[in-house]
Amino acid sequence: MKAEIIAVGTELLLGQIVNTNAQFLSRECAALGVDMYFQTVVGDNEQRLLDSFKLAVSRADVVICTGGLGPTQDDLTKDVLAAFVGRELIVHEPSMKIITDMFQSRGIHMVESNRRQAMMIEGSDPLHNETGLAVGVAFTYEGTHFILLPGPPKEMKPMFTKYVAPWLRTRMTDEVPLYSKMLKFAGIGESNLEHQLLDLIQAQTDPTIAPYAKESEVTIRLTTRAQTASEGERNLQSIELEIRKRLGEHLYADQDVPIETIVLQLLGEKNQTLAVAESCTGGLLSDLITAVPGSSQSFLGGIICYSNALKHKLLGVPMEVLEGEGSPGAVSSETATLLAEQLIIVTGSDFGLSVTGVAGPSPSEGKPVGLVYIGFAQKDAATRVITLQLSGNRESIKQRAAKSALYHLWKQLKDS
Amino acid sequence: MKAEIIAVGTELLLGQIVNTNAQFLSRECAALGVDMYFQTVVGDNEQRLLDSFKLAVSRADVVICTGGLGPTQDDLTKDVLAAFVGRELIVHEPSMKIITDMFQSRGIHMVESNRRQAMMIEGSDPLHNETGLAVGVAFTYEGTHFILLPGPPKEMKPMFTKYVAPWLRTRMTDEVPLYSKMLKFAGIGESNLEHQLLDLIQAQTDPTIAPYAKESEVTIRLTTRAQTASEGERNLQSIELEIRKRLGEHLYADQDVPIETIVLQLLGEKNQTLAVAESCTGGLLSDLITAVPGSSQSFLGGIICYSNALKHKLLGVPMEVLEGEGSPGAVSSETATLLAEQLIIVTGSDFGLSVTGVAGPSPSEGKPVGLVYIGFAQKDAATRVITLQLSGNRESIKQRAAKSALYHLWKQLKDS
Repeated sequence: MKAEIIAVGTELLLGQIVNTNAQFLSRECAALGVDMYFQTVVGDNEQRLLDSFKLAVSRADVVICTGGLGPTQDDLTKDVLAAFVGRELIVHEPSMKIITDMFQSRGIHMVESNRRQAMMIEGSDPLHNETGLAVGVAFTYEGTHFILLPGPPKEMKPMFTKYVAPWLRTRMTDEVPLYSKMLKFAGIGESNLEHQLLDLIQAQTDPTIAPYAKESEVTIRLTTRAQTASEGERNLQSIELEIRKRLGEHLYADQDVPIETIVLQLLGEKNQTLAVAESCTGGLLSDLITAVPGSSQSFLGGIICYSNALKHKLLGVPMEVLEGEGSPGAVSSETATLLAEQLIIVTGSDFGLSVTGVAGPSPSEGKPVGLVYIGFAQKDAATRVITLQLSGNRESIKQRAAKSALYHLWKQLKDS
Repeated sequence: MKAEIIAVGTELLLGQIVNTNAQFLSRECAALGVDMYFQTVVGDNEQRLLDSFKLAVSRADVVICTGGLGPTQDDLTKDVLAAFVGRELIVHEPSMKIITDMFQSRGIHMVESNRRQAMMIEGSDPLHNETGLAVGVAFTYEGTHFILLPGPPKEMKPMFTKYVAPWLRTRMTDEVPLYSKMLKFAGIGESNLEHQLLDLIQAQTDPTIAPYAKESEVTIRLTTRAQTASEGERNLQSIELEIRKRLGEHLYADQDVPIETIVLQLLGEKNQTLAVAESCTGGLLSDLITAVPGSSQSFLGGIICYSNALKHKLLGVPMEVLEGEGSPGAVSSETATLLAEQLIIVTGSDFGLSVTGVAGPSPSEGKPVGLVYIGFAQKDAATRVITLQLSGNRESIKQRAAKSALYHLWKQLKDS
C-alpha cells in the first residue's frame, strides 16, 4: 500500500514550525506496513492544494492530510478536497454539539466560523477529535483512501492511533500485517543502547529492531509480519529475550508508556505515597507525575523550593548549609538529603524525592551547569543521594534531571 | 521567485529523522524574499527522484535539494539530476584533494566510492563544504536554479548561509525582501481573534496578516516587503495600530515569547516576587515559569498541594472547607482564596497565585471536568478569584489553566 503525506500550512513553508507530524505519521505507517513514498508540504492556497490532491491520487493508495481544518479563512483543506472529489460538506452533528456546548459552558460568543470545524465530507467516516474541536474524516475516492487530520500534534496523534490505524488496517487486504511491540528503557542513552545491540541490529531481517530516543527515554520497536498477536509474540520471543538479557536493568515497560506511569503503578501496588521537593526541575517532575490520570492515589504533592528562602522556610534546611563561606550550598548532597528527609516529616509521605542542581544557562555557587543531586528518602531506610553531571540546555537538563529521578525511584521500588 | 525544497532520504520517509533542514531553508528563503511554494520528501529511488525533478522544474524557479550526496550506493541525487539535465559528472579537484588528504592523514584505505563525494555536475558552481566531504553544486537549467546540498544540517546550514544565499541574491533581480513581525495574544481564542480582525484579514495585500494558535496563545504574523527594518516597521505601523486598538488588552508582546517571560519581566521591573499554589495544574505552572532563564530573580517557588492533606498541612486550609457534607470543597472559590492568601504568609512573596480545579478524566466532588478556580492574592490588596470552565483532555486543561493564570496575572501587573 503506497502512502503520501500532504501537510497543509503556510507556517510550514515559512519555516515557523517544523513538520514533526510527517515524522510521526511516517513512523506509524511503517509500523502498519504501509509504504511511505512521498511527503509534501503545501501552503494555504486553493490551486496548489488542488494540484497536490490530483498528483497524490495519481500515485498513492493512501493520502494522509494534516492541517487546514481550523475555523479560520485560510483553513481550506476540507473545502478544496470536497470540491475535488465532487462531494458536499455536511454537518457532523456530534461535533457541532460539542462545539456549541463548549461555547455555551464558557459563556463565549460563538462566531459562524467555529461551525466550519464540525463540517465533514459527505459519505466519509468521521474521526472524532477528543483533544480539539475540528472533526477529521476518512473516505475512499477512486481507489485512493483519503484521511484528513488536524494540524496540532496533540489532536492529530491520538486521532491517528485510535481511529485511523484501525481504519487503515481493515483496508490492507493483501499484505500480511505488521505486529509491533515497544520496549521502553530509561537510564541509558540511545547510542549506548544501540552499541550494545549492534550485532542484532545489523543482522536484522524479520523481526526488525528500530531504536529511537525521545525525552530521556529510549524506545525499541520490534516488528514482525504476523496474522495474529500470538503469532507475532512467538516471532519476537527469542530476540526480546536476548535484549532483556543484555539491557534488562533499564527496561521498565513493554508498552509505550512513560516511566512515571510505571512508578505510580508500583507505588499503588505497594500502597505507598510519594512527595517531591524540586529546586532545579522547578515543577517539571510534579508535572510529569500529575500528567498520569489517577496519580492523586499515590502522589501527595510537593514543594517547589526554588529559592533558598523556601528551602529553609518550608523544609527547614539550615541557612548555614545553603549559603555562606565554606557551606555545602543549595546544590549539594547535604541539601538533597535534608530536602528529601524533611519532605517525609512535613508531608507524611512514604517516599521523599528531592532534586537540586544547576539548570543553567549560567553556573551557580561556582558549580557547573548540569550538576544535579537527587535525594531519595524513605521511612525506616537510609537516605541515598545520586550525583549527575548532565549536558544540554536549560530545558533538557530539567527534563533529564526529572527523568533520572523517576528512573532511580523506579529501580528502588521494583527491587524493594 | 518561487522555490521548492526536495529532501532526499528514505530515513525521512520512515520517520527515523525529522526534516529540520526544510524548516531552516524555508526560514532562510523567507528572509531572502524567496517564496516557498512546496516542500517534498522523496526516498533514495531513481525513478521517484527523477519524477520529483521533472515536477519541480515545471513549477519552481529555484529547487533546493538536500541529501543523497554521500559516498554510498543509495546516494543518487547528483547522478539522477545530471542525467535529467543531460550533463556529465566531473571531478571537483579541490574537493578530491581534501578527501584524499584526509584519508592519507588518517591512514585509512580510501575506497572508490569515497571519490563520489568530490563529483560535481558539469558547468555548475561548486559549493564548498567546510564541515564535511561532499561538495555541493548550483547551476541553472532552462531558467530553473538547482542547488544541491548535503543532508547533515551541520554541513548544509553553513553552506547555505555562506555560498547559496549570496548566489541566490545575485539572481533575484526584481524582488524585495520580506520583513515580518510577531504579535502575541493571550486570553483570547484563535477564531474569536480572527473574527475581530476579519475585515483586515480579508482586505490584506501588503502587509499580510496571518493568525495561528499554539498552546493557549495566539500569534499574528505581520509581513511586508521592505529593504530595511525601519522601512518594514513603517509599512506595518498603521495595521499594527489598528490591531492594538481592537485587541490591545490581549496583546502581551510584539516578539515571539511566551507570556511567562513577560510576567517575569514585569515582576522584575516592579521588584516584586511570586509564589504559586498548584492543585490541578500539578507543577505545570511552576515548570512554565522556571523554563525562563533568570526566573529565580522573581519566582520564589511554590507548593504542589495535590492532596487535601497538603492543602491543609502546608497552607492551612481548614479540613471542614475541603471535605465533608456541605463544605465548599477543594475545588472552590473559598479554597482558591485561602491557598493564595496563605501562600503570601507562608512564603513571604508579594503575589500569591493559586490554581485548583478538575483536570479529569473523571469529575471530582461532583464537579465537572474543566472547572477551575484561580486565586490572586497580593499584599495590601483584596484577593480576586476567577472561575473558568475549560474543555479538552487532562493535558490541555492543565495547559489552559496554567496559561490563564499567567494571563490574568499579566493583566493585574500591567495595570497596577
